[in-house]
This record gives sequence, structure tokens and C-alpha cells, in this order.
Amino acid sequence: MWADFHRPQDLGPILANATSVELVALPFAGIEPYVPLIRQRSDLLWTCARGVYARPVAEHAIALATAGLRHIVGYAQERRWAEPHGRMLVDGSLTVFGGGGITAEIIRLLQGWNCAITVVRRSATPMPGASRTVQPDLAVEAVAGADAVILALALTDETRGSIDSAIFDAMAPHAWLVNVARGGVVDHEALHQALVEGSIGGAALDVTDPEPLPEGHWLWGLQNVVITPHIANTPEMGIPLLAAHIEENVRRWIADQPLAGVVDPVAGY
Amino acid sequence: MWADFHRPQDLGPILANATSVELVALPFAGIEPYVPLIRQRSDLLWTCARGVYARPVAEHAIALATAGLRHIVGYAQERRWAEPHGRMLVDGSLTVFGGGGITAEIIRLLQGWNCAITVVRRSATPMPGASRTVQPDLAVEAVAGADAVILALALTDETRGSIDSAIFDAMAPHAWLVNVARGGVVDHEALHQALVEGSIGGAALDVTDPEPLPEGHWLWGLQNVVITPHIANTPEMGIPLLAAHIEENVRRWIADQPLAGVVDPVAGY
Repeated sequence: MWADFHRPQDLGPILANATSVELVALPFAGIEPYVPLIRQRSDLLWTCARGVYARPVAEHAIALATAGLRHIVGYAQERRWAEPHGRMLVDGSLTVFGGGGITAEIIRLLQGWNCAITVVRRSATPMPGASRTVQPDLAVEAVAGADAVILALALTDETRGSIDSAIFDAMAPHAWLVNVARGGVVDHEALHQALVEGSIGGAALDVTDPEPLPEGHWLWGLQNVVITPHIANTPEMGIPLLAAHIEENVRRWIADQPLAGVVDPVAGY
Repeated sequence: MWADFHRPQDLGPILANATSVELVALPFAGIEPYVPLIRQRSDLLWTCARGVYARPVAEHAIALATAGLRHIVGYAQERRWAEPHGRMLVDGSLTVFGGGGITAEIIRLLQGWNCAITVVRRSATPMPGASRTVQPDLAVEAVAGADAVILALALTDETRGSIDSAIFDAMAPHAWLVNVARGGVVDHEALHQALVEGSIGGAALDVTDPEPLPEGHWLWGLQNVVITPHIANTPEMGIPLLAAHIEENVRRWIADQPLAGVVDPVAGY
């Protein structure tokens, strides 16, 4: 197992010397920096931690959405008994961008919430448990009427900046944007305008662009914004999940069964 | 129906004159200021809105617990990229005081969260869906190991000040206290000490004693405290729920069926 995300260049020489290695387990959900080495050493079996951390990230997304809608973000900044505010996600409506493991967990966690969930995903396959699944060409229509919009999609050339003014204009004035994906999927200039003009209720961001977000950035100045420093999945949360994933894969390896999270060297994920 | 919570003293004379009244519907979940009058006029049938607002209040309790555990309360007060913090309620452990409608809804909403829920209630009857039900004599044992402790019990002579230093001492140092019941159930001096000494993680209070909490009160000064101004159930959330409750009780009254939310004058709720 290779745990330092930022040092892919050191792994090649180690593997060249460790001739008995058959399996390399990468404990990361996204492995872009390792793709060249994986392609070069496709004689080895590579696994990643795709989907392993979905559960903590899904909980954080729900916590951010309710903290926004329930105005807990605003009240936390008060030093006096303030005006009544608040909206429910229970019996409400949610739109999630992305149809992967995080979205599946969000749907699972909200199973008792009677919340209408629309999923926007590339695939035409309906997301199990969602009220409605649409493809990205219907994204603007999909956010209309939602109380919260959660971003849980991969950052690709297609999705970069795709959460833009058309999306914000279509959102309800009370609706909160929650980002647990990557900062780059949001058009930040459009977000600034939406927040300042009040065309959305607020933004709860676990990811920003860049990270760390520099002091003095305009996002720090707004009362209807909360930024959590990329902690939807902390090491304390992730390590037990990773341990279970590795343990299960070792068990499967011994039993000669297919492993979880196997990387396709050609596809690169 | 008598809708002004703060004027119980005006209701007695009105009832004395309105000799044809048989049923008094109080639209409040907690009715402590009315108990003396209810005992005096136990010839009438009294109903309260016990359980009617359970759903919004349960959601708020969960939102407060996750906002505390996930450190969203702290991050909302930051103007810089701060240190990583956060605990999960998912796969965690929760203790709820009170075995009424709010607790039932909390259990319902958390059905997909794999959260071990201990309920502390007066009755020996196991709370449906809870992992464990204990009576108040085991309260201290019941909070040990919990990630969050939610207060959803009635304020009575027995429960006043019952959440005291013995409870706080038994709680985990990361655990959050969430109060959606009444401020009076908490021994506030003991809470102050627990927060200052760090023997609990923080407190998220939708109810305080007194209300509104005056400016300059020590509770306003702590970073690991959030106060929401008694808005777990806002009028916007509650009025449709109350309307349905009254409609149902009128229907039952006409059909000579037992009403919902009938007050026991002796128990006082």
C-alpha cells in the first residue's frame, strides 16, 4: 500500500526493486497522478479506494445542507437571540449532481426523510432510490424547486465550471448549494453574483478552488457561506473504512476472488 | 383553541364564563404554564399538540448534532482555512432523553445511519427501533460513549435541572449536547463548567432559560456553542401540522373516538 498521494514518482523505483510484489493498493478514491505508472506496470494488479469513503462524505453533505437550510450557519455567527429562520429538508426536495457512491449513500441516509431526490448523471440509467434521474442537458430544469443542490460529481473537462449562472438562476432563492466534489466544478464568479444578489440561499463548501482558500478571499466575507476545510472525510473517519476495504481485499486475494476497486489501466480509474 | 403561550392567566376567567366549553385544545407541545389551570379545571377535556411538531423538531435535533460533531458550528465562525475536525454520527452512537414523538421521529430519520440509539425514558417499555431503552436511574451510564446526547423530554418537577454535572462528567469529551426540549431541564451552571473545562465537545441549544436569552449571557461567548432561537419548529413548518392535528381531533370528537394529545392533569403533560 502506497499512502503518500503527492509522491507518485517515488513508487516506480521501489516497485522495480521489489520483485515479489503482485498487488499495489492505493488508498485514494481518485488516482490521476498514478495513471502513467499504472499503465507502465500493468503486469501488476492495482486497486484504489473508489467508493470507500462515500459514507462520511455523504453524511457531511447532508449535515451541510441542513446546517444551511436550518440557518445554523447564520446562528453560529450571532451573539444575540436572532430572528426566526429555517427550512426543512425532511418532506422537501433535493437535487444531487453525480451518480456515484456518494450519491448512493446520500439516498440511503435520507431513506426516512420523505425527501424527493433528483439525480443528475451522465448515464441514462436511473439511480436506484432516486425519485428522478436526468442527464446533464436537463440540469437547469432539475434544480428548479429544490431546497438544496448537492455537488458530488467528478471533476473532468466536461464538468469544470459546469455549475454556472444558468443553474443558480434556476435555483430557489432559499436553496443552498453544497459542494463535496471539487471546487473546480463551480463557476465561482457566477456563485459570487448569486450569493450577493440573493438568487440562492447560501453555499456550504467542503472544497474550494484553490485549496487552502487564501485569507481575504471574498468567500470568507459572506454570512450565508460556510467553508469546511476539505474534511468531509477526515483521516480518523477514513482509516477504519480503508482498513476494512484492505482486509476484505486480502481475504478475497487469499480466496482467489475478484478484488474491490481494481484499476483499469486503460480507462485510468 | 388557545394560542398565546405566554398568557395562561387570561384563560381561566374566559373558561369560567364560557360554560358550554367541553374541550380546550392547546396548540403547544409542552404546556407547563397551563398545568395549574388544567388541574383546577380537570372537569374539561384538554388536549395539547404533543407529537404534532415532532418531525421538524427531530430534523432540527439531527441537524444540530451533525453541525456540532462535524464542527460546522466552529467553521461558520472562521474567516480562514482552519484545522481539520469532525466526528461522524453515521456508524456512531446517540443517546436521547425522552421517549415521545420527537424521539420516535429521530429514530425514523436515522434508520439508514447505522447509529446505536439509547433512549432514556420513564417507562420501562422498550422504545421501538432503539438499540437500548433504559430508565432515568441509568441515565449516567446511558450517556457514556455517546457521540451526541439529545434532550427531547418534557419539563416536569422531576426533570428540571436533571441534565447535570453527573451527566456531563460521564459524556465523552467530543460529545455534543443538543437541547430541543426546554432550557429548564439543563443545570446551566454544570453546563457552563462542562463547556469551559472541555469535558464535553459542545452544546447546540434550540431552547434556553430564559428565552430570549439576554445579550451578554455567557452562552453567547463560547465558540463550541450554537443557539438557535427556538426555531426547531417555525410557524411555517408547524401550522400545516397543527391544522391536520386539529382537523383529525374534530373528526374524532364528532365520531366519539379517543382524541390525540389528551393531557393527563396528574402527570402534567
